[in-house]
Amino acid sequence: MAIKRKKISVIGGGFTGATTALMSAQKELGDVVLVDIPDMEDPTKGKALDMLEATPVEGSDVNVIGTSDYKDTAGSDVVVITAGIARKPGMSRDDLVNTNANIMKSVTQQVVKHSPDCYIIVLTNPADAMTYTVFKESGLPKNRVIGQSGVLDTARFRTFVAQELGMSVEDIQGFVLGGHGDDMVPLIRYSNAGGVPLTKLLSQERIDEIVERTRKGGGEIVKLLGNGSAYYAPAASLTQMIEAIVKDKKRVLPSIAYLEGEYGQNDLYLGVPTVLGGDGIEKVIELDLTEEEKADLSKSVDSVRSVMEALPKD
Amino acid sequence: MAIKRKKISVIGGGFTGATTALMSAQKELGDVVLVDIPDMEDPTKGKALDMLEATPVEGSDVNVIGTSDYKDTAGSDVVVITAGIARKPGMSRDDLVNTNANIMKSVTQQVVKHSPDCYIIVLTNPADAMTYTVFKESGLPKNRVIGQSGVLDTARFRTFVAQELGMSVEDIQGFVLGGHGDDMVPLIRYSNAGGVPLTKLLSQERIDEIVERTRKGGGEIVKLLGNGSAYYAPAASLTQMIEAIVKDKKRVLPSIAYLEGEYGQNDLYLGVPTVLGGDGIEKVIELDLTEEEKADLSKSVDSVRSVMEALPKD
Amino acid sequence: MAIKRKKISVIGGGFTGATTALMSAQKELGDVVLVDIPDMEDPTKGKALDMLEATPVEGSDVNVIGTSDYKDTAGSDVVVITAGIARKPGMSRDDLVNTNANIMKSVTQQVVKHSPDCYIIVLTNPADAMTYTVFKESGLPKNRVIGQSGVLDTARFRTFVAQELGMSVEDIQGFVLGGHGDDMVPLIRYSNAGGVPLTKLLSQERIDEIVERTRKGGGEIVKLLGNGSAYYAPAASLTQMIEAIVKDKKRVLPSIAYLEGEYGQNDLYLGVPTVLGGDGIEKVIELDLTEEEKADLSKSVDSVRSVMEALPKD
Amino acid sequence: MAIKRKKISVIGGGFTGATTALMSAQKELGDVVLVDIPDMEDPTKGKALDMLEATPVEGSDVNVIGTSDYKDTAGSDVVVITAGIARKPGMSRDDLVNTNANIMKSVTQQVVKHSPDCYIIVLTNPADAMTYTVFKESGLPKNRVIGQSGVLDTARFRTFVAQELGMSVEDIQGFVLGGHGDDMVPLIRYSNAGGVPLTKLLSQERIDEIVERTRKGGGEIVKLLGNGSAYYAPAASLTQMIEAIVKDKKRVLPSIAYLEGEYGQNDLYLGVPTVLGGDGIEKVIELDLTEEEKADLSKSVDSVRSVMEALPKD
Repeated sequence: MAIKRKKISVIGGGFTGATTALMSAQKELGDVVLVDIPDMEDPTKGKALDMLEATPVEGSDVNVIGTSDYKDTAGSDVVVITAGIARKPGMSRDDLVNTNANIMKSVTQQVVKHSPDCYIIVLTNPADAMTYTVFKESGLPKNRVIGQSGVLDTARFRTFVAQELGMSVEDIQGFVLGGHGDDMVPLIRYSNAGGVPLTKLLSQERIDEIVERTRKGGGEIVKLLGNGSAYYAPAASLTQMIEAIVKDKKRVLPSIAYLEGEYGQNDLYLGVPTVLGGDGIEKVIELDLTEEEKADLSKSVDSVRSVMEALPKD
Repeated sequence: MAIKRKKISVIGGGFTGATTALMSAQKELGDVVLVDIPDMEDPTKGKALDMLEATPVEGSDVNVIGTSDYKDTAGSDVVVITAGIARKPGMSRDDLVNTNANIMKSVTQQVVKHSPDCYIIVLTNPADAMTYTVFKESGLPKNRVIGQSGVLDTARFRTFVAQELGMSVEDIQGFVLGGHGDDMVPLIRYSNAGGVPLTKLLSQERIDEIVERTRKGGGEIVKLLGNGSAYYAPAASLTQMIEAIVKDKKRVLPSIAYLEGEYGQNDLYLGVPTVLGGDGIEKVIELDLTEEEKADLSKSVDSVRSVMEALPKD
Repeated sequence: MAIKRKKISVIGGGFTGATTALMSAQKELGDVVLVDIPDMEDPTKGKALDMLEATPVEGSDVNVIGTSDYKDTAGSDVVVITAGIARKPGMSRDDLVNTNANIMKSVTQQVVKHSPDCYIIVLTNPADAMTYTVFKESGLPKNRVIGQSGVLDTARFRTFVAQELGMSVEDIQGFVLGGHGDDMVPLIRYSNAGGVPLTKLLSQERIDEIVERTRKGGGEIVKLLGNGSAYYAPAASLTQMIEAIVKDKKRVLPSIAYLEGEYGQNDLYLGVPTVLGGDGIEKVIELDLTEEEKADLSKSVDSVRSVMEALPKD
Repeated sequence: MAIKRKKISVIGGGFTGATTALMSAQKELGDVVLVDIPDMEDPTKGKALDMLEATPVEGSDVNVIGTSDYKDTAGSDVVVITAGIARKPGMSRDDLVNTNANIMKSVTQQVVKHSPDCYIIVLTNPADAMTYTVFKESGLPKNRVIGQSGVLDTARFRTFVAQELGMSVEDIQGFVLGGHGDDMVPLIRYSNAGGVPLTKLLSQERIDEIVERTRKGGGEIVKLLGNGSAYYAPAASLTQMIEAIVKDKKRVLPSIAYLEGEYGQNDLYLGVPTVLGGDGIEKVIELDLTEEEKADLSKSVDSVRSVMEALPKD
């Protein structure tokens, strides 16, 4: 059998989806299929063609296509789901959850129909509940359905710390548990610069400010853009997770993983430290938490569970 | 004296400008400043911050800022100009030329005021006339003012050929002279796949179709997108030119260069093969042309000169 | 099924083999197994461990091991053979051919026993005859057995031209047919700088000197080193071929390929332009040759066939 | 002023020096000059030429030359010193220190004569004493003279931990203070996998074994090779330090730095956490140590000081 390139499908051709497709192509991770709804087929084809036309300059030998037909995703190794709507003014949270959950179901059916042996990474918000929905709908084993939130949260945290300390982003390590944004549980004692605990380098007050800025990191970008939300760092985060899987890197990265007893939780998708490799989430790393961390995580769990209550029953 | 990072400023925070900033940051070419007008300051800051938050994931140690204040561009090594308006329905070509030429003048004054020793790459359309305008306004030597068109045209050509032949984009070589798009003069006899002339690998008919598709390559994307024009491949092309300069690579790339006698032209910016290195356009490569190529180039020159007639006189 | 890393085995732990292992690990092409004879097992383990200890700094997630047991190569995707002796003073060419052919046979048996579905790249000299020997011994289809010589010859040619012209090595294209070194048939009309034919940029005299230096390129290094022969550029060349296969890049590269009618030759391994991808040599590209080129190639073929006469009969 | 490539000189053309030159060229960090004594001029030229001939395949636009004339190093940005002898059987430690110290002096005089504004990285053993010698001889400010030991020690530590845990080398962080090898002071509480303290992932016994293996890491390779010592990981470590400087990355890396009061030491070069950027050692990071760590460091300091007593007086 000849050696074949990996295949990556990105569902949702908006800014984050398109940028994820671009970055995957730049890194030559595999052939890329960008999928959107039939109404958006032409723009999606246009974005994909534009990316493809960048490959000679990048020296990257991958194909990139845009489509609205899931047949084109057949045999994907990794599928990234960015589809879904953003919360509009006046929309209730439950309406958002319901609408996106239904999108997840419909997308997942199509995805697994054509790629029954794929790994799925979910970005759509609220990511914990949406990853859960995809997991249930897909019938895939838990290690194959993964949500993104912690890579992005830590990327923002690392950025702010690196700027503050005037040190390389490569050497700043952040660590979060739990939900995204406000529900994020930062574990500062596991955060460091080249191994040196942040508490040795920054005052508690400054750390608190950076944590707070990280929590509100998505909102900071939304406010600046005026119209729309962040997509460069989210896409880079997704691409790092794709890379960890297709190159079987066994990265230690925070993922939204399905818990069966870990951290005292069952039947829940929650942000935890994981090992991400060629078999998806190969391991959930459990940590002893302080009482304070436990309390924070508990709040985060409650928040996720309350969102999950809004999921459509069937 | 400490070693300092290179500094790259990108004027115009639209899709092409922003993607150029992103790609320059990804390649760690230098600190990046994305500039737009005061009205767009917040969105520009938002895009820049989003990019910066991707750097920990990319492992890239560069700063990225958004601004509307040219003071922030001070001391840039390379400045890329993507500012300008796109042609709107009902707008005459002369109006477009006039408007963008005035934008070029104003931008150039600001750029050279704060970076008197920079290299400028111009993307704004019509690129030949706009590069000429920037050159005249800047007072910089000709090697420091460079226009982009051929890298993008050949990227598209290479993409189509690679797809047709099922060969690596790395090994397809295209070659163009003259203006962008319809005015492009493809030199098929200098185009090859791994050194093998395309004429050995493809029928003349198929080559003609690929050339025609390349000519209309910008329009193909515009039509698909429905709203807006290509930016991934244009940004990748600009980034390759930036890299050639900041890393002093002495790449043999097509650039819009100021001609003083070359190809029988004077006081004209035109697309020609050049050596692009640490001193900008270090050399214009002159080629013997066939009668047919001469005729095509002559038409291309006429077209460029006719656009230049529309430039504001002062 | 989980996604697994590619596996690359390098037979022969000398400088070229070890450097090929290093470069494959640096590029994260797959897990690497460096194999040498039992007497050299410990040094081979030492080199492999030293390389492995470089991976954290390189950010490359691959395993590297040294061994003398072919079981460790089981399931390799690509196997590179660098084993063999160098010609010693006083040794006849036939003795060299015989000795190395016997090494090839023994190595090949072991290789295909444990990796019946692999692609083999042969470097051992004389490469044409040794690739032929491996092909016959392996029982593999012709596309799976590939010899290296042209990538190295053109790398040297490109280096000399780039230095002469002060242009980027990325833009210099060389083109050779036939045997290695003295038997090399350079096709100057297919050699160019950014598409511009070398004959436009250099005098015929200077080109001839560069061709001559390329022919003697291996000897130039041998003479300088005093003891031993080139290994950096040979290893880089092998690594490029490995990459073309494991990433299915479909590179247009010169390979030593098995001919069945192409270029008028049958049952012969000879250096020709090929497409190298996920199925090994996916295509041999045939070119029309001038009478002079035909004569040169004929001489090269005679030379290869005369070496093959010295192969052990069985 | 045109933009120029950085220039890196590597003194000592043995395996480590040559591999450092290779890796710097591969990463396109700058033009590379490999220097050895006049007797070794031809082999050094041979290695450099062989590396240069790999650049077209690597796509790297840098020059690489071999020489015995320090004039060729003029204007270097970074100079790496790997010159010196290895300890031979029967040689006393003091003889080794004396011989290498005299080599350091002679090399340093030549280096600073031609590159008065360079950054120097010293690898030669015993590295603490040799870095001190170079510092005194050079007359350069302390931030410009840097010794390597900790990057290599932590690379080995990270390798062993990554193998043990089956996790990505990218996510394992090690942390050492003090001297090299036996004198190394590992700070396990600052070592982690993706932020998770190693003590949560490995038994103390297993950690102790890994620390012990790291301490003896150089010896393990020496023993396996039978003849010679490690060079791949040492060269990768040096290259990372070069990159941190020429790209002004401000990496948080362990370096042998000149102490003026830090860690209670004065007029001593010792391995400590530093920020390495465009101005060399931009910062020494001080840590609170436990009593046990203080004791270990004290022993390490004694050991370094005792070596320094053997330095030639003048």
